[in-house]
Order: sequence, then C-alpha cells, then structure tokens
Amino acid sequence: MPGTKHQVPSTKTVAIIGLGLIGGSLALSLRQRGLAQQFVGVEHSAEHARRALELGLVDAIETDLTAAVRWADLVVVAVPMDAMLTVLPAVLDAVESHQVVFDVGSTKGALLAAVAGHPRRGRFVAVHPMAGTEYSGPDAAIQGLFDGKTVVLCDTERSDADAVATVTTLFQALPMRLLYLDAAAHDLHTAYVSHISHITSFALALTVLEKEKEEQRIFDLAGGGFASTVRLAKSSPAMWVPIFRQNRLNVLDVLDEHLHQLQHLRELLAREDYDGLTEQIQQANHIRKIIP
Amino acid sequence: MPGTKHQVPSTKTVAIIGLGLIGGSLALSLRQRGLAQQFVGVEHSAEHARRALELGLVDAIETDLTAAVRWADLVVVAVPMDAMLTVLPAVLDAVESHQVVFDVGSTKGALLAAVAGHPRRGRFVAVHPMAGTEYSGPDAAIQGLFDGKTVVLCDTERSDADAVATVTTLFQALPMRLLYLDAAAHDLHTAYVSHISHITSFALALTVLEKEKEEQRIFDLAGGGFASTVRLAKSSPAMWVPIFRQNRLNVLDVLDEHLHQLQHLRELLAREDYDGLTEQIQQANHIRKIIP
Repeated sequence: MPGTKHQVPSTKTVAIIGLGLIGGSLALSLRQRGLAQQFVGVEHSAEHARRALELGLVDAIETDLTAAVRWADLVVVAVPMDAMLTVLPAVLDAVESHQVVFDVGSTKGALLAAVAGHPRRGRFVAVHPMAGTEYSGPDAAIQGLFDGKTVVLCDTERSDADAVATVTTLFQALPMRLLYLDAAAHDLHTAYVSHISHITSFALALTVLEKEKEEQRIFDLAGGGFASTVRLAKSSPAMWVPIFRQNRLNVLDVLDEHLHQLQHLRELLAREDYDGLTEQIQQANHIRKIIP
Repeated sequence: MPGTKHQVPSTKTVAIIGLGLIGGSLALSLRQRGLAQQFVGVEHSAEHARRALELGLVDAIETDLTAAVRWADLVVVAVPMDAMLTVLPAVLDAVESHQVVFDVGSTKGALLAAVAGHPRRGRFVAVHPMAGTEYSGPDAAIQGLFDGKTVVLCDTERSDADAVATVTTLFQALPMRLLYLDAAAHDLHTAYVSHISHITSFALALTVLEKEKEEQRIFDLAGGGFASTVRLAKSSPAMWVPIFRQNRLNVLDVLDEHLHQLQHLRELLAREDYDGLTEQIQQANHIRKIIP
C-alpha cells in the first residue's frame, strides 16, 4: 500500500473529466478550500471547455484523456451516467497505482458491474454527492454546492484502503457528511428519495403545460409552491434519462407506489370522503418530522 | 357613492378575522407599509389569539365578531374556506355602507355564490393573494410575504367601485401585481397552477413514507430536489381539504391529466423507449421559459 494520503491538503493536481454542474462545482470547492492546487479539465463539448476556462473552473483543458489522467494525483469522473459506463473504464486503463479515481454518478449498480473485473478497480472509489440544482453545464457550477450535504460512498471494501482514505478526507474537509452504502442499497434509496421527485416534477410540468394553454396565466399565478414543485422539471434529459435507465426497476417500483397513492387521493376526493382525505394529508404531514 | 378612499394611507383601522399565516402576514405588511394604523383580531383559537398579541400581529383581540367589524374601516376575512362560507355572510350582516370587506380565500365559486344575494354584497371584494408557505398559524406570519407577488381580484363588477378602489390601492401599495379574473376562471387556473402541486406533493410524501421504512435514510439522502418537491406536503389539511372540496371538479380534472402524464412516463420507461422519455422531458423543460 502506498504511503497514507489523508493529510489535508493531500492532493496537488486534479483532473476533472466532464465540466458540468457537478464537476465544475467540485473544482471550485476543492480550490476554495485549498484541497487541491492545479486543475485540468477534459470536456467533449468545445463550447463547455471554453466556458470552463473563462470561468476559472480549471487551469487548462486537455483533449487527450490518457494524458490528463496520467498528469493528475486525483481523477474525478463527472460525466452523465451513460457516458460514465465507457469513460470510467478508459480512465482506469490509464491510471497507475499511486493515483485515486472517483466518480460522482447518481446510480451505482451498472457502473460498479462495468468495472468489477478491472485490474485497477482498487484505485476507484464510488462516490455520490447528494447535491445539485436543476441547471447544467459549466455556467451552472457554484462554489459551496456541497457544503453540509451528504456524500454516499459505495462498496468501499472493493477499493484500496488508501484510496478510500484520500476520498474520505477530501469530502470531510469540504465539508460533507459521509454515508457508506452498498451499491444496491444506494440505488434503492436514491430511487425513493431523489429519482421519483424528478419524475413527479416532469409529470407536473407536462400536466400544467397540457391543461393551461394560456402561458401568461401560469406565469401570473405561479406562487412559490408551484415554482418549488416544478423546479426539477427544468432538469436536463441528457442527465436524467441515463439515470432512469440504469435504475429502471427501482424507479418503476417507486413510481407504481406513487401512482397508487395519487389514485387513492383521487378516489377519496371523487367520492367526497373528506375525513379520509384529511387522514391521508395528516399522514403526509409526517414528513415534517423528517425534513424540517 | 362615499368619498373616494384610494389615497394611501387610506385605512385607519383594520379587523382581521382569522390570525393565521395569511391574516397575520397581511397585518404585518399593512402596518410596516403604513397602510393602516390599528389592528383588531378575531380568532376562535384562544391559543392563536394569545400568540397573535404576543407577536404584535394585532393590537387587540375582540371576541365579538360584530363589534370588531363595526369598529373597523376595513375587514379582512382570512379563515379556512369551509369557515369562510359562514363567516363572510356574518361579517356582511354587520357591515355598514362606508366599510370595505375582502377575503383572501383560495377558491371563489362557492364563496361568491354564498353571498350573491346579500344586501351588502357591494361592500365585499373577492381577493386571492397568490402567496403562502407550508406553515400555518400566527407563528407562521411573515412580513414581506406578499411583496411582488400576484393578487387576483374576482368579479369586481359585483363590488361597489369605491370598495374596489380601496382594495386596489392597498394591494398596489404592498406592492403586489393585480390580476382581474372571474370566479370560474380563477378556480380553473388555480387548480392547474396551485392546487395540483399540493396533491402531487402530498402523494410524493406518502410514497416515500410508504417505500422508505428507514426514516434516517430519507433524512440522510434528501437533497434540495426532494426537499423542494415535498415541501408542500407539510401543509395543513384544515386549510387544504376545504379548498379541494370547493374546487373538486377542477381538481379532479387536472389530477386525471396528471395521472395520465405519469402513466405515460411509466410506460415509456417500462418499455425502454428512451427516445420517447427524452422527448417528454424536453417537453417538460419548456416550463423554463415560463417559470425562470
């Protein structure tokens, strides 16, 4: 095992593969906290690469993935989940035994299966910072996005101890709250708590756009409540379709429960069972105790 | 017609019937803007009445509705929609021809029908400020809740011109953006833009509470996305059941469309039609242009 790397600041050079909301925000946060000194970006959109440089997210752009990986102490893979399945193995192909790689992907099962037999699997730590906004691309990057949020580390027993230590130290210093889950539990819980919110928000936007033909009325009448429930519907399909695809069975399962709950509320209202409706809303209010 | 009352400040004394989130916030805002000087509250919960006094929402509590109404230049009725159907006629019974009354209710059809033949109908202006939070009671009252939001005035041709002028001047000075709709259009559009958001949020909370048995996991994994979509599920049944009841047909109609949209997304995912899912999400993204 290489020497311990969990002193802060432990990392000098970072390659960020994918300069969108998460990759860009992570670069800003690591730099601002003094956790890394030099940043190189790899980004397949020339326009995004140009903006990332302008915004100071990275110090340089490298078009050759292997060159960028070889240069860095730490490699962050922050591409959409479909690209992740090919980019992460390519990164691991280039990595040497002193380097550390982590992803920031929203699903884990398919990704961890894709790299399970890789000779450099131990250098990779599976990471999911539970933070984001409805915006995407380098212009969406914001410093402080991760402060105080939860970061999930998955199947850490498959990673080398020093790689886990490096990643742990880094996220503790951001600071984030660390949570350890296996990949299957991660995909199940995130379907329940995160992915379903996006499905309901997309469906709500489609509903309102279908029913309310006068767009000016939506604008006029949208209070804070509507705005907050429909906010996630601004999220990009390029990010979310691959997530739904890779977590399809869990998402379908929670979506069926959601349809069942909505049907139940509909039936109570249709048959004018207002006591039943009150009881269901009181039940829903229980979320107050969990999300203050 | 009495003398014009649309100079600001035009109102000296205000009776607030119902000292919850909206009534309390309105008292705070009118006072802070210098739009009224003295406030008396009528509140059937002794505990809420005591808190409203402690918080300085009103200067005095009056237990006799008629006495409070007779004392005031302006009467604001801010009780839940079920109570509204009996409290507003009682207020109009006590009102004299120089006074102005407005409600702040979320539905209008049933309420305007309930007072259509009242001899003092002209003194009443139907008002819906499109602002709120998921909290209720006097402790939820906040100054500035209405700033820059939309306020809907309904069926103003049924109100005396001077009463409409007084209310218009008051809300313009808060300041709010005024929108004039008939009651039927109001109830239709608010079902589309506001009421459905609450139904989806209640159903989302019920879904997550049903599927996710480990409450600590919800707390750990809830990012900003989940928190914002589930926020409205904290809203009280005492406020919302009467709204759903009085706007039942419109709410059922938009709820059926929402179920249809969700079923469609489910089918696309179930049959792995990712191009179709992408197309639907791009369609939902159109909400960006309306809600910036």
